[in-house]
Amino acid sequence: MAVYTDVSDEEVAEFATLYGLGEVLSLKGIAEGVENSNYLMVAEAGQFILTLYEKRVNEADLPFFLGLMEHLAAKGVACPVPVKAPDGQSLHTLAGRPAAIITFLSGMWPKRIRPPHCAEVGAALAEMHIAGQDFPMARPNDLSVAGWRPLLDACLDRADEVKPDLADALSRELDWIEANWPADLPAGVIHADLFPDNVFFQRDRLTGLIDFYFACTDAFAYDVAICLNAWCFEPDRAFNVTKAKLLLSSYRARRPFSMTELNALPLLARGSALRFLLTRLYDWLNTPAGALVKPKDPLEYWAKLRFHQGVSSPAAYGLEA
Amino acid sequence: MAVYTDVSDEEVAEFATLYGLGEVLSLKGIAEGVENSNYLMVAEAGQFILTLYEKRVNEADLPFFLGLMEHLAAKGVACPVPVKAPDGQSLHTLAGRPAAIITFLSGMWPKRIRPPHCAEVGAALAEMHIAGQDFPMARPNDLSVAGWRPLLDACLDRADEVKPDLADALSRELDWIEANWPADLPAGVIHADLFPDNVFFQRDRLTGLIDFYFACTDAFAYDVAICLNAWCFEPDRAFNVTKAKLLLSSYRARRPFSMTELNALPLLARGSALRFLLTRLYDWLNTPAGALVKPKDPLEYWAKLRFHQGVSSPAAYGLEA
Repeated sequence: MAVYTDVSDEEVAEFATLYGLGEVLSLKGIAEGVENSNYLMVAEAGQFILTLYEKRVNEADLPFFLGLMEHLAAKGVACPVPVKAPDGQSLHTLAGRPAAIITFLSGMWPKRIRPPHCAEVGAALAEMHIAGQDFPMARPNDLSVAGWRPLLDACLDRADEVKPDLADALSRELDWIEANWPADLPAGVIHADLFPDNVFFQRDRLTGLIDFYFACTDAFAYDVAICLNAWCFEPDRAFNVTKAKLLLSSYRARRPFSMTELNALPLLARGSALRFLLTRLYDWLNTPAGALVKPKDPLEYWAKLRFHQGVSSPAAYGLEA
Repeated sequence: MAVYTDVSDEEVAEFATLYGLGEVLSLKGIAEGVENSNYLMVAEAGQFILTLYEKRVNEADLPFFLGLMEHLAAKGVACPVPVKAPDGQSLHTLAGRPAAIITFLSGMWPKRIRPPHCAEVGAALAEMHIAGQDFPMARPNDLSVAGWRPLLDACLDRADEVKPDLADALSRELDWIEANWPADLPAGVIHADLFPDNVFFQRDRLTGLIDFYFACTDAFAYDVAICLNAWCFEPDRAFNVTKAKLLLSSYRARRPFSMTELNALPLLARGSALRFLLTRLYDWLNTPAGALVKPKDPLEYWAKLRFHQGVSSPAAYGLEA
C-alpha cells in the first residue's frame, strides 16, 4: 500500500486542467502498488488513475512504459491508456515528480485464484506478446539473469538469517542458471510482473492488465514462466497442475510455443523463481523498520524454486510437447 | 494509510448484492484513515465507500455512529449516509468484520489550510451541533478529561524519551486541567475529530464532513476547541489569529456562544491539545516497528498546548465577547 508523495488539492486541480479533464471532484490515495503513488481521481470528465512516479522508477524509462500502454491499447489489448495533454504529451510534472493520468479500468484483481482465471491470463499474455511485436521501442530487462548476481552478492552476508544455508543454496543455483540460461528464445515486449494484483476480472472474465512498469524486452517464454509462478501455486505452496495446464494451453492456442521454448520452461521457471526470491530477499533484509510497505516473504519463492528444481520435463506443467 | 482486512472479490460481490447495489465493477483500498479498512467501491448503482470496522472500534458503538450520519444527513448536514439493506439494517458482516456501505461524498480535503476553509468549517460545525440536538442516542466521550489520566499513566515512564521533562510537565498540566475542567457547558453530539482530512471541499466550498467514528456526547465548545487546534496553526506551529477569528465568528453566527462557553475556550483548547498530545504520545511509544500506520508527532501538540497556556482571555483567538 503506497502513497509516497502528497499532493495539494490546488496542484491537482491545476494538473487536471492541463489535461482538459475539468474540475476534480474527488481524489483518494490508493492502498495498492509498491513503486509509485497512485490516486483515484474523479473529475468532470470521468474516473482516472493519477500516478506520480517515485524515485525507484527511472524517469528515462517512462516514455517506454507509457508508449507501450498506448500501443497495446491501440491493438485491442485491454489495458489503461495514458491521457494526453493538448501538447501531445502524457507525462508532466506534479509536486516535483513526473506524473501521468491513466484511464480507469473496471474490474477487480482476484484474491483467490481459480482455474478460469489462469485460462484467461494465458490468453491475455499471448495476445499482449503478439500485440507488442511491432512496438518500436526496446528496454533491456535489468532484472534478468545478468542482474541477479549483484542482487545475490548484496544479500549473501545476511541471507542465512532468513533460512539456514540459504546463501550457499542460492549461490549454487545461480551458478547453474548462469551456465545454462538460453540466449536464443523468441523475444519481444514482455510484462515481466503479471501477478494477480495486476490483472482485473469481472465474473471470471479478464477485463484488463495493469502496471506495465517492469515491462521490457525479453524472452516471451520467460514471461510465461513468471506467470506459472505467480498463478499456479496454492497458498500452501503446492503446485496446481490443472491451473498450469489451463494457463499454458490457453497461451499456446494464441501464440504457439516452439520446442526450444517448451524445453526451456523448467529452467526459465527456476530463473523466474530466483528473480523474485532475490528481490524479495533484498527488500526483506533492507526494509527499514516502520516502512510503509511491508516486505513480502522471500521463502514463498524458495518453495517454488525447489519445485522447479525437481522438474525434468515440461510434462510436469501439464503439457504434452 | 490503511487497509487492515483484505476481502475477496467473491465476498464483496455477495455483500453488494445483499444491499441491492448490483454488480461490483471495481474495488480499491483507500490509503487514508487510521482506524478502519476503507475501500472505494464502484458498483452498478454508483460509487460507495465500503468500510470494515477493525478491532480498535467498539462494535457496540456502531449503531450510534451510523445512526448519527443518517440523522444528520436527514437534517441537511452534508455527510455520507449508510446504505440500508432490504432488511432495514446498514450493518452486516464481511470477512468476519462488521461492515457497512456508505454513500460517496465528492470533494477533497485541503492539504494546505487557507482562511476560507476555516470560515466554512466553523459554519458546518455549528450546523452539525444544531442538527444533532434531537438525535436520540448518547455516547460518552471516553477520550475526554476522565480518560486522560490512564493515558498519561501509560506514558509516564517513557515520555521523557520524546522530550526532556515531558512527563513532569504533562502531569502538572493534567492536574491543573482536572481541577478546572468545566462541567456545565451546553452539550450535545460533537464530532470530536474534525481535522482537515475529515472535511471535504470543492473550490473553497465545504462539500461535507466525514468520519464520525469519534463522535460522542460532550460540550459543543470543546468541539470548537478541537477545531481551533486542528485548523488554526500554521505548519511552523504559529497560531493564525485570522483563521481562528473566521472559524469562531462563522460558528457563532449560527450557534451563539454563551459567556461561559467563551471564557472556557482557552481551558478547553488546552484540554483538546493535551488529548491529542496524549493519544499521539501513546501511539508514538507503542507503535511496533514496521507498522502500516506511521505515528504522528506528539510534539506538534506540545507546541499548541504551550500556546494556549499563554492565553488569558478568548480575545487571543480574535474574538470580542
